[in-house]
Amino acid sequence: MGEPKGDIALIGLAVMGQNIILNMNDHGFTVVAFNRTVSKVDDFMKNEAKGTNIIGAKSMEEMVKLLKKPRRVMLLVKAGAAVDAFIDKLVPLLEKGDIIIDGGNSEYTDTNRRCKSLAEKGLLFVGSGVSGGEDGARYGPSLMPGGAAEAWPHIKNIFQSISAKSGNEPCCDWVGSDGAGHFVKMVHNGIEYGDMQLICEAYNVMKDGLGMGQLEMADVFEKWNKEELDSFLIEITRDILKFKNKDGSFLLEQIRDTAGQKGTGKWTAISALEFGVPVSLIGEAVFARCLSALQKERIEASKHIKGPEKTRYEGDKVAFLKDLKQALYASKIVSYAQGFMLMREAGSELNWDLNFGGIALMWRGGCIIRSHFLGDIKSAFDKNPKLSNLLLDDFFKTAIENCQAAWRRVVSTAVLLGIPTPAFSTALAFFDGYRSARLPANLLQAQRDYFGAHTYELLASPGKFIHTNWTGHGGNVSSSTYDA
Amino acid sequence: MGEPKGDIALIGLAVMGQNIILNMNDHGFTVVAFNRTVSKVDDFMKNEAKGTNIIGAKSMEEMVKLLKKPRRVMLLVKAGAAVDAFIDKLVPLLEKGDIIIDGGNSEYTDTNRRCKSLAEKGLLFVGSGVSGGEDGARYGPSLMPGGAAEAWPHIKNIFQSISAKSGNEPCCDWVGSDGAGHFVKMVHNGIEYGDMQLICEAYNVMKDGLGMGQLEMADVFEKWNKEELDSFLIEITRDILKFKNKDGSFLLEQIRDTAGQKGTGKWTAISALEFGVPVSLIGEAVFARCLSALQKERIEASKHIKGPEKTRYEGDKVAFLKDLKQALYASKIVSYAQGFMLMREAGSELNWDLNFGGIALMWRGGCIIRSHFLGDIKSAFDKNPKLSNLLLDDFFKTAIENCQAAWRRVVSTAVLLGIPTPAFSTALAFFDGYRSARLPANLLQAQRDYFGAHTYELLASPGKFIHTNWTGHGGNVSSSTYDA
Repeated sequence: MGEPKGDIALIGLAVMGQNIILNMNDHGFTVVAFNRTVSKVDDFMKNEAKGTNIIGAKSMEEMVKLLKKPRRVMLLVKAGAAVDAFIDKLVPLLEKGDIIIDGGNSEYTDTNRRCKSLAEKGLLFVGSGVSGGEDGARYGPSLMPGGAAEAWPHIKNIFQSISAKSGNEPCCDWVGSDGAGHFVKMVHNGIEYGDMQLICEAYNVMKDGLGMGQLEMADVFEKWNKEELDSFLIEITRDILKFKNKDGSFLLEQIRDTAGQKGTGKWTAISALEFGVPVSLIGEAVFARCLSALQKERIEASKHIKGPEKTRYEGDKVAFLKDLKQALYASKIVSYAQGFMLMREAGSELNWDLNFGGIALMWRGGCIIRSHFLGDIKSAFDKNPKLSNLLLDDFFKTAIENCQAAWRRVVSTAVLLGIPTPAFSTALAFFDGYRSARLPANLLQAQRDYFGAHTYELLASPGKFIHTNWTGHGGNVSSSTYDA
Repeated sequence: MGEPKGDIALIGLAVMGQNIILNMNDHGFTVVAFNRTVSKVDDFMKNEAKGTNIIGAKSMEEMVKLLKKPRRVMLLVKAGAAVDAFIDKLVPLLEKGDIIIDGGNSEYTDTNRRCKSLAEKGLLFVGSGVSGGEDGARYGPSLMPGGAAEAWPHIKNIFQSISAKSGNEPCCDWVGSDGAGHFVKMVHNGIEYGDMQLICEAYNVMKDGLGMGQLEMADVFEKWNKEELDSFLIEITRDILKFKNKDGSFLLEQIRDTAGQKGTGKWTAISALEFGVPVSLIGEAVFARCLSALQKERIEASKHIKGPEKTRYEGDKVAFLKDLKQALYASKIVSYAQGFMLMREAGSELNWDLNFGGIALMWRGGCIIRSHFLGDIKSAFDKNPKLSNLLLDDFFKTAIENCQAAWRRVVSTAVLLGIPTPAFSTALAFFDGYRSARLPANLLQAQRDYFGAHTYELLASPGKFIHTNWTGHGGNVSSSTYDA
């Protein structure tokens, strides 16, 4: 069969895999396509891949033989056991220095493990975040690769060619070692959960608080999309609001209001808890999905539990919509600040040396959260690569200060009208907590010491733990000596 | 040495262990005390245990020989590796049918594992929640035992004798199999996190929003402790506010406002995410602790970020304090409703057949969250053991409806004044979401289908998943076929 011609193989011909293959083909790479159910390869070759340079493989052996060395094999299969199963099948077919790339939504801890175990076999493992949905995959996704750094020179050209561009810059760069790429992708998805929840809350306030119709709301999102909130998710929200069925009815109102939350948003919230970082907005976004899923219970509860008497806003609608935009914008700043706090903490604990400006650039285009806003974040890190928190950057500090009165009006109004805005609310509570030199946790520490002898520190001598016998009748044994 | 006299052995002589031993001794049980650092046994015997029937053991072999059969050995050591290490040392010293009880704050998944592995060796393992701090341990803790049910008849008398009582009823009953006892204890601790956070928020609002002094606040808590909020944590908050140093200054103000969160509160929030139950109040309580721990960052941020112009409430203080109590009470109802939702879901997924009224009774006395309120929860489950949600019980539904106007006023005021109330706010958002027949998750589902072909359901045909080609140019492949 002559010299192998394949630049890269891709396993997994669902929509994401097919589109990435077509994207690579567009950029002049010869892709070998494989799928466990081989009939899918035939279907793909006869339809979408017809007339391209894509090569279909009937077996993994054939697929590997078609590849130039070092061989590059990318998996786009369901995260979890399927990834391990394919890796196990690939290992005996590959040679030292060959590269396996996992482009699925894998947990970063799995990627850590796979990097290590494949390194022991001389193989280079890369876990890459891929975002942008089917359109992104087809025309330019955001790519977040991490893992074995020696693999990067061999995949850089392909990855940066097919990725989205922000201006001339590819929305793809090396993230860091081990599972860093998948970790950053996970946080991306968590932020996506947050962005979507914020938009849902704005929609809910417009719909229930202001009584607006779909086209009227679409116009608002259209307008917002030309201002600070310019972003893919705002844009598609406009389109969704406008979308009509053939009979002229709006589809959106007919869609069941129950969302799933089994994936990366949940992992982000769990990671936040594990790393001890207050990523409360993503947490609320996940819980909001959980609550949406309890539709039956909600419908039952809605019949029994009364809300407030007044549920419609009676003030100036135009002014309130301006406030609402500012509330959404300010909450979004908080959400990204929290997400970057989480990456900072994880990067520091796991020695990843993350490039935060680079991450903002990777998210600037191609992915679901792509936005003008991420350009501002990139600028903030360009100005100060050591920036400890987005809220301390001058641009964002000023932006959020300018929004804050409007933001408070929106949350307080929603609270009075009985419209749930958990993400707006938690963002504001975080903002107020973050800018507090003193929080009431001194009382909490006193309580813990009172009932459990857990000890506390004095403001005057941090690091020194003290127990007080608050009642006069407890013991003097502190529980910091809780051993045996 | 004649017939063995020991009813039970206890390993681990930190404050909790010592106090439980003394409590058992008071109730006529002969306890064998052991500690890894044996000098602690001597100290204990010479001091606290002097003149009692407690027997000190110098080794685990000696300890076991002193016990009647079936032998009962209770561990009160640091959760984690220490528990496994002691189990490993105990196993060769014990016989079939002997009982090991872990009274530490173990993760319920560890207890699941230990139950299983010890059952294979013929030993009965019990994981028991123990709450009440040092005072509770000494004079009557809340005990939540679960695991090998065959052990219960052999430990019931000791456990129910030493436990707290609510009226004549012991605050201790069998919870369920495997790690059910530790799971319920974990949720207890999560709720404790929530209760403490709610009290901290009320304190913060009084201090910063109303400008109240410590004795004035103590009077408020004193009053609240005679009403619906009658509880241990409200009571000790009063004491803490009153507590003065020898120089006459208030200790509370001098305590550093940074709280830890490495324990069971965090696990509860993670479990909530894993089980998909919106336990948002505990989540916010954990995140509030995380934020408190970033004291240095907060102090820095407080110098740069402006808050609202008006930070002091200028209305009727007495009326606002009444509102504040109602806000705290309503938020607390939500927190417990969420906690019971989590137990319901876990119990159902793991087949534990939990007795929710019994759990409320176990928490009614002895433990940190003990309160009049838990008696009301017990009554709700007595009325209807199948009650699906506390918010649907007539007593709590009426109570929260009566509070809601005040609750909304407090949250909206705090939001306008810039005082963070993340737990009050999330409770209210949950309440408003829970009583909503429609939430805006329809938009979220449309977005997911738009960018990722994730499909959605129609209200009219739940269970049937549909993909729409929103843009006209995407493919028709839905990602529900994401396999390879």
